[in-house]
Amino acid sequence: MERAWIVSLGTELALGQTVDTNAAWLAQRLTELGIRPARHVTVPDELSAIRDALAQAAGESDVVVVSGGLGPTDDDLTRHALAALAGVELELHAPSLERLRGFFAARNRQMQPTNRIQAMIPKGGAALENTCGTAPGISIKLGGTPCFALPGVPFEMKTMFERAVRPVIRAATTGRVLLTRQIQCFGLGESDLAAKIRDMMTRGRNPEVGTTAKLGAIGIRINAAAGAPAAANELLDETERELRRRLGELVFGTGDDTLAAVVGAQLRQRRATLAVAESCTGGLLAKLITDVPGSSAYFVGGAVTYANEAKVRLLAVDNAPLAAEGAVSEPVARSMARGVRAALGATYAVAVTGIAGPGGGTEAKPVGLVYVGLDTRAETRVERFLFGHDAPRAFIRGRAAMTALNLLRLELLGTSGAAS
Amino acid sequence: MERAWIVSLGTELALGQTVDTNAAWLAQRLTELGIRPARHVTVPDELSAIRDALAQAAGESDVVVVSGGLGPTDDDLTRHALAALAGVELELHAPSLERLRGFFAARNRQMQPTNRIQAMIPKGGAALENTCGTAPGISIKLGGTPCFALPGVPFEMKTMFERAVRPVIRAATTGRVLLTRQIQCFGLGESDLAAKIRDMMTRGRNPEVGTTAKLGAIGIRINAAAGAPAAANELLDETERELRRRLGELVFGTGDDTLAAVVGAQLRQRRATLAVAESCTGGLLAKLITDVPGSSAYFVGGAVTYANEAKVRLLAVDNAPLAAEGAVSEPVARSMARGVRAALGATYAVAVTGIAGPGGGTEAKPVGLVYVGLDTRAETRVERFLFGHDAPRAFIRGRAAMTALNLLRLELLGTSGAAS
Repeated sequence: MERAWIVSLGTELALGQTVDTNAAWLAQRLTELGIRPARHVTVPDELSAIRDALAQAAGESDVVVVSGGLGPTDDDLTRHALAALAGVELELHAPSLERLRGFFAARNRQMQPTNRIQAMIPKGGAALENTCGTAPGISIKLGGTPCFALPGVPFEMKTMFERAVRPVIRAATTGRVLLTRQIQCFGLGESDLAAKIRDMMTRGRNPEVGTTAKLGAIGIRINAAAGAPAAANELLDETERELRRRLGELVFGTGDDTLAAVVGAQLRQRRATLAVAESCTGGLLAKLITDVPGSSAYFVGGAVTYANEAKVRLLAVDNAPLAAEGAVSEPVARSMARGVRAALGATYAVAVTGIAGPGGGTEAKPVGLVYVGLDTRAETRVERFLFGHDAPRAFIRGRAAMTALNLLRLELLGTSGAAS
Repeated sequence: MERAWIVSLGTELALGQTVDTNAAWLAQRLTELGIRPARHVTVPDELSAIRDALAQAAGESDVVVVSGGLGPTDDDLTRHALAALAGVELELHAPSLERLRGFFAARNRQMQPTNRIQAMIPKGGAALENTCGTAPGISIKLGGTPCFALPGVPFEMKTMFERAVRPVIRAATTGRVLLTRQIQCFGLGESDLAAKIRDMMTRGRNPEVGTTAKLGAIGIRINAAAGAPAAANELLDETERELRRRLGELVFGTGDDTLAAVVGAQLRQRRATLAVAESCTGGLLAKLITDVPGSSAYFVGGAVTYANEAKVRLLAVDNAPLAAEGAVSEPVARSMARGVRAALGATYAVAVTGIAGPGGGTEAKPVGLVYVGLDTRAETRVERFLFGHDAPRAFIRGRAAMTALNLLRLELLGTSGAAS
C-alpha cells in the first residue's frame, strides 16, 4: 500500500456549508502509516457522483477511505454506491441490527424503521462496529482495492478508524514510513525565508522541505521517508539541525507551537510576569496570550485603550504627546508600555498602537503603521513597522499582535540587538 | 455554466497539515451564482498530480476554480501545469512584474529573483491582479472550459474572486438562479432552535432551510431557486418573515452580521459608549468588538484583569469579595462591570469572569462556570451561565464572550426581562 485516496461525501460539504475537517484528519493518520494521500475528493449526495468518485478512487489508489453517507436518510447513499460498484446486493447484517436496537433501547428512544437500512451491508463486505453512534462502517474490496467507509460525524469516524482501520492498514503496509516534523519561524516574509533554504526545498529531496504561513508565522514542514521509524527520525534530525543553523533566532518552536505558548514558557521559566497595553489590536494580543492554558501563571492582565481618554485614564499616558504626535506615535507606544507595567506591577510589558484600517490612514500615517513598545526593569524601547498598506484590518491586527510577541521573545532570548 | 469543479493545491492540504477552508468558501460563492459545485479535489504539489486533476476538472465541468500553487517557490506549480495542459509556454507579463516590484518597494524589501516567476503567465491566458499580495491569478481556457487559478492565501483568494472572477461568471450564467440569504440567531442551542423550525427544514422544500453554528451563533441559511432573481427574492422574503415570527428576539442579524457589529450599530445609533472588563475571556471580548471597522466610534476600551491584583488595581474591585467568594463570583462580576464603567466613563459596561479550563475547576465552581455583569446608568446586574463542562477552553471562552455581547444586545433592545 502506497497511495490512498480520501473521499468525503455530503451535499453540505460540496456546497461549502460545512468545512470538511475529516479529510485532513484522515490524511494525517494515513501519512503516519506511511501511506501517501494522493488525492482528496468531495462530492454531493448523488448516487452517480458518488459512484464515479469511488470507482476512480479504487482504480487509481491502493486504499480508499470514505467518510459520510452512512446515515438513515434517503440522501445517505454510500452503501448503495459500494454495492453497485461491487456488483452485489445489500444484505441485512444481523449483529449490526442487534446493536442498533440496543443503541436506541439504551437511550429509551424508539428505533425508526428508516434506521434498519443502517444494518445493511453490501454482500461480501464486512461491517465495522460503531461504538459511538448508529451507523456501522463498511469494509469492502473494489476491484481488489480495499475500501473503508466510515461515518461523517467526526468523533465516530475517528474512533472507528483507530479501532477498525488502522490495524488492518498497519498489517498490510510493508514497513516504509513517512514521518513529519515541523519547525516554526517568525520574523521574515515567506519568500525571504525560503531564499535562505532554497537548496533544501528542491523537489525529490528526502526529507522534503516546504513552507506554509499563518498570521505571519512560517511553518517549515519536513517529511522524511525511510524503511523504519528510526531511520526516518535520523533524516529529520539532520535536516532540522541544518534549518536551525541557517535560520537562527527566526526559529521559535516546533510542531504546533504558537508564539504565545513559547513566550509563555520562557516567562514561566524565569518566574516573570507580563502585562500588555493595546490600541489597534484591541484585545487580540491578550487573547492570543490567554489562548494558552495555564497563562494565568505569568499573564497579569492588560488594558485595551482604544480611545485616547482610556490611554490617559488607565495608563497615565500624558496628554501632551497624544496631542502633539497623535495616538499612533513612538512616545505614546513608550508611555503605554511603561504605564501598563507600572499599573500592573509586571516584569515585562508590551504595548501596541497603530492604524488597522480600513479608515483612519493619512499620508504621514498610513493604514498598516504600527508602533510596538517594550518595557522592562532595565529599559523601554519602541520599534516601528509598516504592515502592507491595502492589507485587510484582520491581517494588520494579526501581524501587529504577533510582532509584539516576537519582540518579547527576542528580548527574553537575550539576543535582541537593543538588549540592555 | 452549470457545474463547477473546485481544485485545491498544496502538499500541506493533501497531507492534512492544514484544513482547506478555501474550497468551502468558493463552493458557497459559486452556489450563489447558480453554479453547482460538483466536486472538490485536493492534490499535493506534484506536477503530474496537478495536471491530472486539472485535466479531469476541465473535462468534466463548465468552469474550474483553483486555489494555491502560485507562490514564488519551486513547489508552486499551478502555472506550469496550466501551461502544459494548454500546450503553451509561460511568458512574462510586464504589468504584473511592475506590480511585484512596486509591492516590494512599498515595503522597503528586496525583491528576490525567484519572485519573478510570479509574473509569468501561460501564453494566451490573462493575469488577474492581486491587490493584496504578490501572486497574480491566472485566467485561461483548457479545452474550452474557463479555468481561474487564484492564490492559496484565503484573503488574497477571496479578494481576487470578488474582483475578477465573480463578474465574469455572472456574465456567463443565464436563467435559473439560486439565491441565498442568511439570518443570524443567538440564545438557543442548535437542536433546540431547529425544533422550532423543524417543518421548514424538510428536504426538497423550496426555499431550502438549514442551520450552521459558529461560536454559539446559529446561522439559518435559506436557498431559493427560481427562474428570475425577483421570484427567488420573493420566496426568500416569505421564508424569512416566517422564521422571524417564530424566533423573535433570538434573531440578531442577517448575512454575515456578527453580534459585535449589531451591538456596535445599536450603540452608535444611541451615541452611547462601551467599556469591557474581562477575566476568563482574556481579551477575546474586546477583540470581537474591535474586529468591527469603525468600532472606535463607540468602544472606549477595556481591562483584561487576569490576575486578582489586576482586578484590584485597574478596576478597584474590593479585596473582600475576592477573598470571600473568589474571582469567579457574582459580586466580583458586579464590581468589575461597575469598576470599568467608572474608570473609563462609558455609557455601558460588560464584565466576564469564569473558569475556561482545562484546569482550575472545582466541585462548587466547575470548568465552564461564567458570570456576566452588565452596568448601565440605571442598574447593575449579573447573570450566571454554565457552558458545558468538559468543553474545550476555546469553546467556553467563545461562548462567554458572545453571551456578554448578547446580554448587551437585549439590554439595548429594551426587551430584557430585568430592564429597569
